[in-house]
Amino acid sequence: MFKKRDNIKEVEEGKYLEPKFDENGLIPVITTDYKTGDILMHGYMNTESLKKTIETKEAYYWSRSRKKIWHKGQVSGFVQKVKEIRIDDDQDSLWLSVDIGNGASCHVGYRSCFYRSIPLGKIENTEKLEMKFKEDKKIFDPKKIYKNESNPTKL
Amino acid sequence: MFKKRDNIKEVEEGKYLEPKFDENGLIPVITTDYKTGDILMHGYMNTESLKKTIETKEAYYWSRSRKKIWHKGQVSGFVQKVKEIRIDDDQDSLWLSVDIGNGASCHVGYRSCFYRSIPLGKIENTEKLEMKFKEDKKIFDPKKIYKNESNPTKL
Repeated sequence: MFKKRDNIKEVEEGKYLEPKFDENGLIPVITTDYKTGDILMHGYMNTESLKKTIETKEAYYWSRSRKKIWHKGQVSGFVQKVKEIRIDDDQDSLWLSVDIGNGASCHVGYRSCFYRSIPLGKIENTEKLEMKFKEDKKIFDPKKIYKNESNPTKL
Repeated sequence: MFKKRDNIKEVEEGKYLEPKFDENGLIPVITTDYKTGDILMHGYMNTESLKKTIETKEAYYWSRSRKKIWHKGQVSGFVQKVKEIRIDDDQDSLWLSVDIGNGASCHVGYRSCFYRSIPLGKIENTEKLEMKFKEDKKIFDPKKIYKNESNPTKL
């Protein structure tokens, strides 16, 4: 769908969008809050969801657990209004800057999916690495919002 | 190496680090500048590079193009001092907040790998989507720094 990648110099320094999709047809996406800069989530897009996101200015991802296009916020109401999309040097990852107002982006109920911090320094036991919670309250109750939806987290 | 994932509730709400590595043994990593919050790069780690990063407080990645552990900055000098590592709800992606001083993080020479912005709105021709450059000068000259190193960008 997008311009063919046939020249490394053009991929890195050119002006044309030539995204690289992996063996599953996906490109990773980092999503940040355009006001605070905080990282909200890490997801994936296929060609169709990237095109829809560019055209509608609302974030569409590919749900790997549900195996379908996923209009973020369709169930929870927390639609992501896209302010900017950037791509990296070798055009194999995307950065979305979005407006979610006072909403949340994490299906567990927190504002950001990245609510736990890993301790740094010498590890005594890799199987008992205790993390710290960096968000202390949930924005919504997932049980009320998602009801019959299956949990996207897989073991 | 890390705690076994055997319970979704524990993965999402527990305090123990139970990272999920994909079919290639990798977990995606978002790296931001701890001062500005800007996204610097998107990379990958395997179990060994994650352990080394936690213990040394310097970022080690897995280079997919070179197929080896990659101590970021070993060649360029732009080592990433890790200030914080966070993990997301289902523990399948990481966020590193790092100090690179006034250095750069992109092998093309820019400070951030995300130096191009994709235009939003109705697409006339997906093969001719013209991006805008958001960084106007390079921090270093890759030809001088990398000399005989192969370019990690692949078509």
